[in-house]
Amino acid sequence: MLKVIELKRTVTDSNDRDAALLRGELKERGIFLINLMSAPGSGKTTLLSRTITDLAGEAAIGVMEADIASDVDAARIKALGAESIQVHTDGMCHMDAGMTRAGLEGMEDRPGIVFLENIGNLICPAEFDTGAHKNVMILSVPEGDDKPLKYPLMFTKSDALVITKTDTLPYFDFDIEKAASRAKALNPDIAVFPVSAKTGEGMRAWEDWLISSRGEWNDA
Amino acid sequence: MLKVIELKRTVTDSNDRDAALLRGELKERGIFLINLMSAPGSGKTTLLSRTITDLAGEAAIGVMEADIASDVDAARIKALGAESIQVHTDGMCHMDAGMTRAGLEGMEDRPGIVFLENIGNLICPAEFDTGAHKNVMILSVPEGDDKPLKYPLMFTKSDALVITKTDTLPYFDFDIEKAASRAKALNPDIAVFPVSAKTGEGMRAWEDWLISSRGEWNDA
Repeated sequence: MLKVIELKRTVTDSNDRDAALLRGELKERGIFLINLMSAPGSGKTTLLSRTITDLAGEAAIGVMEADIASDVDAARIKALGAESIQVHTDGMCHMDAGMTRAGLEGMEDRPGIVFLENIGNLICPAEFDTGAHKNVMILSVPEGDDKPLKYPLMFTKSDALVITKTDTLPYFDFDIEKAASRAKALNPDIAVFPVSAKTGEGMRAWEDWLISSRGEWNDA
Repeated sequence: MLKVIELKRTVTDSNDRDAALLRGELKERGIFLINLMSAPGSGKTTLLSRTITDLAGEAAIGVMEADIASDVDAARIKALGAESIQVHTDGMCHMDAGMTRAGLEGMEDRPGIVFLENIGNLICPAEFDTGAHKNVMILSVPEGDDKPLKYPLMFTKSDALVITKTDTLPYFDFDIEKAASRAKALNPDIAVFPVSAKTGEGMRAWEDWLISSRGEWNDA
């Protein structure tokens, strides 16, 4: 049976402190948490599905799907045999550290990589530290290469930018170099990975970054 | 010179009342206000550009572009010769009635159709009445036909759903009938217009709806 957790809105003026606490607790438990953010329909679940399949045997991966309604994403991940949990945010447009902690309590407590698939939104999720060890954002080719200009905070807060749906580049006016340079103007350290989860192109570089980031975190 | 207005966050517990007041004032001034909502990158500005060009001579159209940062959208509209104003929302993820009123004060006061291009976000904008006479939402083909399941409120609040980028249907797994029936399950009265602003397919039905909606509003 698919787990669904209904979260209630909480008001906290100490989210940053909660997030730092959660980050430390997860380190003790060997759980490397990645906060995955993007606009609706950018291909978060498809990217995760391919990543889980590609990394089978290399890393235990769990996924916490955050949505306002529905559990279609969690069902897709569960069908791959990965641990998957759905959280509902009571209409909230982002996840915070308290909500993330509550969601994680519904998951098995074992070392590995856990993805928090945040609410599809380029604005609010960037404003709240979830307690994750890395922030990753997705920009899909159909959305356009002007998004760093329009949603700068999200690019500033992310450790990596995955540009998805590159198999559709012939059909859209999207310049990967332009998107990357606009992102790097906001955040010189951001790692950029153009990928197609459909064809597999570019996936290994993204997956290598995941594995090496986890290794560095583990050794730190 | 491009007009840019910096809005400040306001707290109001009477947004619904403000919105109703604004709606009435605009009626007196002959301004038919349409609140256009969607996810980032769904093609709002491209749809508006084509609509403005197609309806040249039939209706005076102005556009208020709401963004967190940048003025790329307003510059695109202005290049068409239409009245265009950019408002910045001080990081806010939606427009409310007070912000809409403040933005409109920067525009010429003449009868016609004014589009409010709301912040790219499928969540928060649906929660705030802007004072518009019609709410229109865009769902682009690359975003997927499951969006009514995941962002139900937006579909419930909209008078029309424009499905954009239909020229890319061959490259995505998107079923127009499925998207339309999911939207109608939430909102039986919603009018659905599949369009390609690139090829022009379906544009006239959408434009006819605009003109006839304005006519009914004018006569009411």
